[in-house]
Amino acid sequence: MAETPIRFGILGCADIARKQSKAINLSPNSILYAIGSRSLDKAKKFAEENGFPASAKIYGSYEAVLDDPDVDVVYVPLPTSLHVQWAVLAAKKKKHLLLEKPVALNVAEFDQIVEACEANGVQFMDGTMWMHHPRTAKMNEFLSDTQRFGQLKAVQSFFSFPGDDYFLKNNIRVKPGLDGLGALGDAGWYCIRSILWATNDELPKTVTALHGPVINEAGVILACGSSLQWEDGKTATFHCSFLSHLTMDITAVGTKGTLHVHDFIIPFDEKSASFSTICQIGFKERALPSQNVVTTDLSQEVCMVRELSRLVKSIKENGSKPESKWPSMSRKTQLILDAVKASIDKGFEPVQVGA
Amino acid sequence: MAETPIRFGILGCADIARKQSKAINLSPNSILYAIGSRSLDKAKKFAEENGFPASAKIYGSYEAVLDDPDVDVVYVPLPTSLHVQWAVLAAKKKKHLLLEKPVALNVAEFDQIVEACEANGVQFMDGTMWMHHPRTAKMNEFLSDTQRFGQLKAVQSFFSFPGDDYFLKNNIRVKPGLDGLGALGDAGWYCIRSILWATNDELPKTVTALHGPVINEAGVILACGSSLQWEDGKTATFHCSFLSHLTMDITAVGTKGTLHVHDFIIPFDEKSASFSTICQIGFKERALPSQNVVTTDLSQEVCMVRELSRLVKSIKENGSKPESKWPSMSRKTQLILDAVKASIDKGFEPVQVGA
Repeated sequence: MAETPIRFGILGCADIARKQSKAINLSPNSILYAIGSRSLDKAKKFAEENGFPASAKIYGSYEAVLDDPDVDVVYVPLPTSLHVQWAVLAAKKKKHLLLEKPVALNVAEFDQIVEACEANGVQFMDGTMWMHHPRTAKMNEFLSDTQRFGQLKAVQSFFSFPGDDYFLKNNIRVKPGLDGLGALGDAGWYCIRSILWATNDELPKTVTALHGPVINEAGVILACGSSLQWEDGKTATFHCSFLSHLTMDITAVGTKGTLHVHDFIIPFDEKSASFSTICQIGFKERALPSQNVVTTDLSQEVCMVRELSRLVKSIKENGSKPESKWPSMSRKTQLILDAVKASIDKGFEPVQVGA
Repeated sequence: MAETPIRFGILGCADIARKQSKAINLSPNSILYAIGSRSLDKAKKFAEENGFPASAKIYGSYEAVLDDPDVDVVYVPLPTSLHVQWAVLAAKKKKHLLLEKPVALNVAEFDQIVEACEANGVQFMDGTMWMHHPRTAKMNEFLSDTQRFGQLKAVQSFFSFPGDDYFLKNNIRVKPGLDGLGALGDAGWYCIRSILWATNDELPKTVTALHGPVINEAGVILACGSSLQWEDGKTATFHCSFLSHLTMDITAVGTKGTLHVHDFIIPFDEKSASFSTICQIGFKERALPSQNVVTTDLSQEVCMVRELSRLVKSIKENGSKPESKWPSMSRKTQLILDAVKASIDKGFEPVQVGA
């Protein structure tokens, strides 16, 4: 007997939901089960265009998706300003959650989501796909290797993509009432996550935004950067921007090795992703960096959906507890994001990172 | 008739002078002509070990090298604290100058050197070898290409190498009275130069040191970072350190393209050096970065000596004026270095970059 797949319901017809729908379709343990939009016509069109099965439920509201008892997981690709409302409601309706990033406008909002998830025993995961690429686990092995990498000393992260004129005027990511955290909430989320990831999720002591952020007329960040400082002397910097060419870098430097990856957000070649490492090379030993290639049949977004579905299945069928590492990681990312924002607002003063 | 080569005299027997001696030997238009050390025995030994011709002059003092009328160029690899004294004296003796970096302890000192060079019509060049690698010119072409690279938006530079226990206790680079600028003067010099290079030598408006520099008991910087801001919104960051694995990165991001190089200080393979570029790639077009390989028969240090000798020859034989771009570049690098130091001293406040 075939296993019962985990049933996904989607709130809204955001662009990113197209990619996610494809991933849900391709993941072996999940199905596209329902979609809700404030416009039933839009929902129908979206379902037709994105491989929903004929049996899929098409709803004219978000509430209807949450009220459908057969929906296991709700995917929320709504603007950030709507996250707390819909994610909390979904959790209360016992729906597991896949929430787009940034997870909230601030950590206080996110804590409401986490509390609702905990009170209702549902799994939370944010939509940071690259965490699920098998390359990420492979890079982790290198960073954890005390012989090859040693102790982490510094991280630099950079994520930019160029918004065109239309994007910079109309996209929800440049609108204060929608994704009000702008480039910091969008591109910066990934940078912060990559830095946390490299430090094995150790929160920095302080965060200091860099001078020179670019802010639009409505007060939304289009480009900014920050430095981060840890108790043990580690430091990191990142730059995120809607105004520069597509660049997706992590550089992690230890006492004995260095890691470079230039496509951490979305691999240039999804099925054969690489990163480079150098170990213990001094000035006098000439050697080229090693190219480490990780192949995968499933794209990172499919891996993400598969992992979430696996966790949800285990909760449903075995009474397992939700995996806390995912909301914990999201929360730490949001904490730093809040601190960067606070540092900008305070004229680039260092900000203690709250617990 | 063979051309007369340019005659180099070296002050002192520093380690770096071994590499430079080899370069002078290999450069087609220069010869190792003299060496002076406070110890005649050390000078003799150095000359024997480093390919000086039998006819080379071995002196028991620096002054004697400067007083030798046949020395064209003096190479000064002395500790930074001695630069102003010996470089000014050399210029007054009409010697052209190859001066190790950092060129001085501060720009006021360096200005004395520049004034002496100008007053005596001698060429000045600092020992930043990578500027002379043909790869650098090739990377320049990319950065200047408005179609492929667009307008520069951000630069990240990183240069670290791990000092061992002996280095961190005894090297002149960690001694306040010798190379008192520490990792900022040594590794940071290269980072600052790389950022200036990427901006086509445009000075930033402000420089703000990053929190968290590592400073030894004697007050010398072992690791630090800074951000830089330009009038037009460009930004840059760098990190320099004696405490991390060998890492030698420049990332330059424009509106239409991105450049990465991971061995800008000393190419992994000196004769076949590469850098990678990506242009106009959005999320939906999957493409790999281009690897650009530049081959050269002469190492970058030989290219440097050859260029300096060419300039000196032209001054000697054709009455040309010294090329001002080299001291100008050194001065701008030192100005930023001073501003980073000042920002650290002022508690990480932004510092205006003096003209």
